[in-house]
Amino acid sequence: MPDTTREIRLAARPQGEPKQSDFDLAEVPLPEPGSGEMLIRNSYVSVDPYMRGRMRDVKSYIPPFEVGKVLDGGAVGQVIASNDGPFEEGAWVQHLGGWREHAISDGTLAYRVAPAVAPISTSLGVLGMPGLTAYAGVTEVAPVAEGETVFVSAAAGAVGSTAGQIARLRGCRVVGSAGSQEKIDWLIGELGFDAAFNYKETPVRDALREHCPKGIDVYFDNVGADHLSAALARMRTFGRIALCGAVAQYNEEQPQPGPDNFLATLPRRLRIRGFIVFDHGDLMKPFLEEVGAAVGSGEIRYRETVVDGIENMPSAFIGLLCGENIGKMLVRVGPDPG
Amino acid sequence: MPDTTREIRLAARPQGEPKQSDFDLAEVPLPEPGSGEMLIRNSYVSVDPYMRGRMRDVKSYIPPFEVGKVLDGGAVGQVIASNDGPFEEGAWVQHLGGWREHAISDGTLAYRVAPAVAPISTSLGVLGMPGLTAYAGVTEVAPVAEGETVFVSAAAGAVGSTAGQIARLRGCRVVGSAGSQEKIDWLIGELGFDAAFNYKETPVRDALREHCPKGIDVYFDNVGADHLSAALARMRTFGRIALCGAVAQYNEEQPQPGPDNFLATLPRRLRIRGFIVFDHGDLMKPFLEEVGAAVGSGEIRYRETVVDGIENMPSAFIGLLCGENIGKMLVRVGPDPG
Repeated sequence: MPDTTREIRLAARPQGEPKQSDFDLAEVPLPEPGSGEMLIRNSYVSVDPYMRGRMRDVKSYIPPFEVGKVLDGGAVGQVIASNDGPFEEGAWVQHLGGWREHAISDGTLAYRVAPAVAPISTSLGVLGMPGLTAYAGVTEVAPVAEGETVFVSAAAGAVGSTAGQIARLRGCRVVGSAGSQEKIDWLIGELGFDAAFNYKETPVRDALREHCPKGIDVYFDNVGADHLSAALARMRTFGRIALCGAVAQYNEEQPQPGPDNFLATLPRRLRIRGFIVFDHGDLMKPFLEEVGAAVGSGEIRYRETVVDGIENMPSAFIGLLCGENIGKMLVRVGPDPG
Repeated sequence: MPDTTREIRLAARPQGEPKQSDFDLAEVPLPEPGSGEMLIRNSYVSVDPYMRGRMRDVKSYIPPFEVGKVLDGGAVGQVIASNDGPFEEGAWVQHLGGWREHAISDGTLAYRVAPAVAPISTSLGVLGMPGLTAYAGVTEVAPVAEGETVFVSAAAGAVGSTAGQIARLRGCRVVGSAGSQEKIDWLIGELGFDAAFNYKETPVRDALREHCPKGIDVYFDNVGADHLSAALARMRTFGRIALCGAVAQYNEEQPQPGPDNFLATLPRRLRIRGFIVFDHGDLMKPFLEEVGAAVGSGEIRYRETVVDGIENMPSAFIGLLCGENIGKMLVRVGPDPG
């Protein structure tokens, strides 16, 4: 058992694109679990786009991060000490004490993961919060139906890649956008997307005209901005839009104009719905059954971009917002099982 | 039976605010009903904001009006000749052959009205398409619940005034916006709105902060533009927005920026839905039962702004888009029953 451990603190609220100096790496004494708590040695900690919002000092669905304090987020690791805590020493646990090498948890929002069933890292990606987000989006928020055209933006990300594949398994024609040829090749060649395009090379409107000639029934939006307005322009009557993220706008300091074709919502009777995965915990069981089985059988594939070392977590987060990842972006801070 | 009758034709597609010269009054021979048709002498013809959209040459949910041709829209009148038509001579009928003094109809989308039950003009307003629009909005598109705060824009119009009163009867706190003190007085003093404000005197954001201190659960949008963005700024988590109209934007020739706080949709899990009354014909029966009874008992009140003479129909339409009406705007072109 080491004497110290390391964590990432918010040094300053980022203005625009986050930079290294907005974060501090701190070495602190290894914490001891109080009564009913456990000490977890993290193996993987998660960086997710939504964390950018928590770096602002605004009220939202979760409290903002505090300057000078350790950040938090999804993590998975092994219990290495338990003081009558909810899981026994040796257990592998997914929990919310991320951005640090060791975490204390009383079990709130923590659950056991089974390394024998799937790699523990998947509990932060395809079989975790991003996967459930994708599942909730295409089954409940903007339900897709066989034969429909589904457009997914940021399709090579953890959420988008899963959303697109679930839609494909439900008999949809699936079109994705991403920011590199490598991502496009992965989407079409490995994930079975019907079409995918590089939004850095083709304006989204042009690409959607080409790839969605009959229009879009469901748009799963992870990007906002030009993607949203281009999708609106091609939505079919009675189309649905799931607003899951707006990564193109997270670094903006000023309010951005909304889509200038927003009025199309009315005559086309569109339904636009914002959602947050935390409201959809009731879907966890069918999600794990369906997507877990599909991952096991290889019908749903996933990829992870893994950065090593807690000291590289700020770069991983900054890179995530620039699309440097393919699939789920993770930081490895401890050993895998076995 | 006269030899001739009059109708209003679209002389030119309006640019911005419609003007008199965009319309022509034409005198034409009285048409004769073909086999299976009837000749209706109109009593009231309707002007509605949605007609502005049909004056543009764009594909939408109904075909655009054609330049040089008679316009159409809601109308109510009496059958004065029938050539084996669907209703007998003397019947009072609501139909879609408006913008003219006499109309030929084969009965498509026409239905009988009962002058003994309610004034025939109500079939174009509180008990007609605008009333059903209001009903669909607050019961199905953005369902309201007891105790919720409902904001209705253009609340003194035919749709808004009915929507607000249905929400009030369902136990909601109802707030409305309108463009004159007379309208505000009517909304609060006669219709039982909990609050109403003149958007020409107070910025919508300020007014909503004052009148909806706990936020808005449902926004029934007839206006768009600043009203929509101000409402978005005050929507409560899980709020619903029914997009019914955007009268502030109908005369714009250029695409307008969408609300710059559109992103709020996501963390607040809002549902935004555009709708068109034609999709909600299945609600006609419960609507007429509930709202018909409430109009009969005086629980729901209505007002009509009636302009006389087909020659004044273009001014009535132009005035409607400027908010000159209180309640339903109608043009009287023939006699009432009895």
